[in-house]
Amino acid sequence: MNNYSPSVTRLINEFAKLPGIGRKTAERLSHHILRTDKEDAMGLSDAIQAVKENIRHCQTCFNLSEEEQCGICQDPRRDQGTICVVEQPRDLFSLEQTGTYRGSYHVLLGRIAPLEGIGPEQLTIKQLIERVRSGTVNELIMATNPTLEGDATALHICEMLTDSSVPVTRLARGIAAGSVLEFANKAMLSDALSGRQKI
Amino acid sequence: MNNYSPSVTRLINEFAKLPGIGRKTAERLSHHILRTDKEDAMGLSDAIQAVKENIRHCQTCFNLSEEEQCGICQDPRRDQGTICVVEQPRDLFSLEQTGTYRGSYHVLLGRIAPLEGIGPEQLTIKQLIERVRSGTVNELIMATNPTLEGDATALHICEMLTDSSVPVTRLARGIAAGSVLEFANKAMLSDALSGRQKI
Repeated sequence: MNNYSPSVTRLINEFAKLPGIGRKTAERLSHHILRTDKEDAMGLSDAIQAVKENIRHCQTCFNLSEEEQCGICQDPRRDQGTICVVEQPRDLFSLEQTGTYRGSYHVLLGRIAPLEGIGPEQLTIKQLIERVRSGTVNELIMATNPTLEGDATALHICEMLTDSSVPVTRLARGIAAGSVLEFANKAMLSDALSGRQKI
Repeated sequence: MNNYSPSVTRLINEFAKLPGIGRKTAERLSHHILRTDKEDAMGLSDAIQAVKENIRHCQTCFNLSEEEQCGICQDPRRDQGTICVVEQPRDLFSLEQTGTYRGSYHVLLGRIAPLEGIGPEQLTIKQLIERVRSGTVNELIMATNPTLEGDATALHICEMLTDSSVPVTRLARGIAAGSVLEFANKAMLSDALSGRQKI
């Protein structure tokens, strides 16, 4: 028996569409919205609207931006000759949070996934190749996810650039800082062994 | 280093205000909103707006409703002479989901909590007493939470009705169905013992 009124049912359904939000959590969030005063609740509603109206992709690197070019592409202190290639804007934010990278980015907006019907033409690979061929690029750093699909995407881009002289690198693979060897899987350990570094 | 644009930062902050949603989850939800097409994202925004505009409290029982009276108070098949007193609308929904109760409700919209500065006058106790005194009520079932504050609230209402002939009951206390005795606490077990039933 469902005694929620239509508006509440609709709100619960909308919350339940979000990733990681199940039915029970959606109900809890909806009750929170019902309980808070109108101004607070509308804050979230308005923020969603504002994001969908203001945010677009940077014309150069396809990062999220409120202008034609994102802050990183506009920043003269950043090395525009080094391009770090990531799958999604959130990967870019994760890398930025380390505070150690001072180059620019290129967001592919996905990865090649034949099983999901996503081919190279649905990504921003063409635009990346154009950026590299423009002649101002010194290094391409592949920072796609260390998965089958991420690796395949990086390899595909490498193959398209075999005739180019721009060096292509990828993020180091090995054991994760803070982890324990006991729980490391075979792939992690063989990456760590083959990529061993001098101390 | 925070490279989110103002709109995205605002959305993350708004999501993080929701109960049980931390910073990381708020970022994940915001990235989901950024990724989905505008129509889907606006669904949530519009649903919040609709709820805040359409939902009010039932004039009789203070349940959530889109009309002056909620569906339960309007339903002629429900026993309007039996009133189940709950703290919050969500308690009402939980009881409704059992499908076994056919009476009406009264939502207190909170419980007496002196430490939080919530006294009887901030709740809908006055309106409940008026309903009982109107003479059409046969039974009052206290379904406040089995906590110190919930019990105190129920006791307060009982005391205000000592001069009334309407019988007041409360939900049975005992061991929870599906639980194990091993993990039951002292209060649960002494409730279960003192309230033992014939089989």
